[in-house]
This record gives sequence, C-alpha cells and structure tokens, in this order.
Amino acid sequence: MSAVGSPALPSPHVRAKRRRRRAEILEAALRAFRDQGYHATTLDDIAARVGVRKTALYHYFPDKEAILYACHRESLLEVGRLIEEARRGYGTAAEQLAHVIREHVRLMTDTLQGSPFAFDVGALSPGHERRVIAARDAYERQLRAIIEEGVRRGEFAAVSPKVAVFAILGAINWIARWYRPEGPVGGAELGRQFAEHLVGGLTCRRAR
Amino acid sequence: MSAVGSPALPSPHVRAKRRRRRAEILEAALRAFRDQGYHATTLDDIAARVGVRKTALYHYFPDKEAILYACHRESLLEVGRLIEEARRGYGTAAEQLAHVIREHVRLMTDTLQGSPFAFDVGALSPGHERRVIAARDAYERQLRAIIEEGVRRGEFAAVSPKVAVFAILGAINWIARWYRPEGPVGGAELGRQFAEHLVGGLTCRRAR
Repeated sequence: MSAVGSPALPSPHVRAKRRRRRAEILEAALRAFRDQGYHATTLDDIAARVGVRKTALYHYFPDKEAILYACHRESLLEVGRLIEEARRGYGTAAEQLAHVIREHVRLMTDTLQGSPFAFDVGALSPGHERRVIAARDAYERQLRAIIEEGVRRGEFAAVSPKVAVFAILGAINWIARWYRPEGPVGGAELGRQFAEHLVGGLTCRRAR
Repeated sequence: MSAVGSPALPSPHVRAKRRRRRAEILEAALRAFRDQGYHATTLDDIAARVGVRKTALYHYFPDKEAILYACHRESLLEVGRLIEEARRGYGTAAEQLAHVIREHVRLMTDTLQGSPFAFDVGALSPGHERRVIAARDAYERQLRAIIEEGVRRGEFAAVSPKVAVFAILGAINWIARWYRPEGPVGGAELGRQFAEHLVGGLTCRRAR
C-alpha cells in the first residue's frame, strides 16, 4: 500500500483571499436581504452583487440558508466580543454598557448596513435556529449581568435588569427598520446618542 | 311616486351591542395574528375565537385585510389620543413624554396583548398601507415636537429629537417580540420602568 499524500494546505495567500471572498459574499447577501427580503433573494442575485457566477458561491456555502446562518452567526460572535472588550476595557457598569451599546449600534449601521436579517430567524433550519436563539439568549444574559452589577454597586437605579435589556435591545434592533446608510446620521454619532440615552436613563433616574 | 321611508336607525341598544361585537372581533383577530401570524390566520379562525360563524363577520368587515386595517387604525387613533391627553394633562415635556410612553406600553401589552401586527404593514392594501404610514409619521412628528420643546426649554439634553424618538419607539415596538400576557411583569409596571428609563436618559444625561 503506497501512502497517498494528503493534499497540501492552501498557502496563507490563498487562505487570505478566500477569507476576503467569503466576507464579500456575506456583505452582498446582507445588502440583498435588506433590499429584496430574504425570501425573494436568490443565489444568482447574491452572485451578481459579488460579480461572480453562482457556482463560485458553492465553494463557500452549500445554499442560501447557510449564508443566512453565517450572517447570524458572525454578528452574534461579534456582539459576544463586544461584551469581552467592555469587561476588559472598562471598570464601571455604566462604561461597560455604554461601550456595548455604542458598538452594537455600529455593527447594525456599518457592518450590517441596516439589514433587518435579525427578523428572519424563522427562515433558518430548525438546528440553526436553535443555535442562533441560544447565542442570542447568552448575549442577553451577559448584558443583564452588567446591569445587575450596576444595580448592586448602586451605579444604576433599582431597575429590573430583564426589562432594561429588552428596552435597550429593542431600541438597537429597531434600527434595521429605519436606518439608511445614505442618511444624514452616521453610525458613530448614533451609537453615541443611544449610549447616552439608554445608559443615562439607568444612572441618573430620579428616586421613586 | 310614493315616498319609501328610509329604514329606521338601529336603537342605541343595538348599536352598543354591535360596537361590543366589533371590538370582540378585533380582539380575537389580534390574538389570532399573534399566535398564528397574519398570513396563516383565516376568517374561520377569527370567527371560531369569537364563537360565531364566519358569515357573521361580514356584517362588520368585508375581509381579513379590512380587519388588519381596523387593528392598525384603532391603535393609531389611540396613540394620537395619548398625545392630546399628555398635552392637556401635563406641563413639562418630561411629564408629557412619560405619559405617552407609559400608556403606549400599556396599549401594546393590554389592548394589543403583545400582538406583533405592527410588523405587518406590508400585508395591507396599498391605500390602507399609505394611510397607516401617514398616521404613524404624524405620531412620530408629535413625539418629536414634545422632545424638541424639552430641548428648547433646557429640560432635556441637546439630543437629536429624531434619533431619540426612534430609540423610544424601537424599545416600545419591540415589546411585541418578547411580551407574553401570562408573564410576570404587568403592563403598568413595564410602562413605568420604560418611562423612567427612556425619559430619564433625556433629562439627566451628563454634560458632554
């Protein structure tokens, strides 16, 4: 039996190129989902936006649902990273929460370009939907933990952390309903105002 | 030519009964839209929830779309009334805004029972959709006017009223995504916390 050599791993150059192409596909898909809706978008639409043939997409994703799942997955990984950054970079709950809000808003406006794909979990396969919901729940728990800590330390008023998180995520998720990248307010300015509004309402509320 | 008498108007008793039945139909429809989604709901489903035959619904509404439009229309009339109440009942912009937020939250939780029908303008006929969007725009303008006044009077920080209104309406509209009437937090308590959080963030923000 002669040993068959395993195919050589792609070179770093090729891998970097593949990563860029994959990111381009996801970006094009987000824009297509935003402009046409997920259900009306075809793989041909996405390929045309990237400037490749549909068959080229199959090197990266088996089907449209896999692209939608990747969009969900990457943005949930991203918000998970925001929590870590906030914990590492800031000492107070108010600063940590402000960081997460500012950067989550920028994720909505800049990376996702106002794409309302977050409304479409129902379009995922049951297995993918379960994983997305689990990751989303984990993010909500981490946000709640920051607020609980702020309440315990007396930084925040004695709110229900659960209700406060729903108010904050509602404000942020709703961005997909009205934001247009070509509009006058940039993501950074929007993030700053949201953070001041939504953190300020916890730190400075009048005593009941 | 003999004059043909116009049919007698229904008695006050009959009219009150018709109003109650109409309200029952709208309430049953909201619950059905919430539980099954608008598209999957049939007139038979709504009739069954009211406990009448489908033909009885036709005395009130020509079709399912007319019921959806009535749901939109009545809730928009209701939020319009909240603005008037706030203007008449309270002197400061902060109190006016708090009233509108508290009562809009209760409309979402109690009257609409967390029904996400607000997400379904696309299911309306073009004429109805136009009217709903116009009424919604008018409500947003009135909310902005309260915030502009608060900024002018120095009650609120120098925010963009447009962005502040989007944050507030996002938080409120998102309620339809997570609220369950059988859950532990009542509408009144939720409205109180939302008002403190979302008004507090405008009145007490730190100087930049």
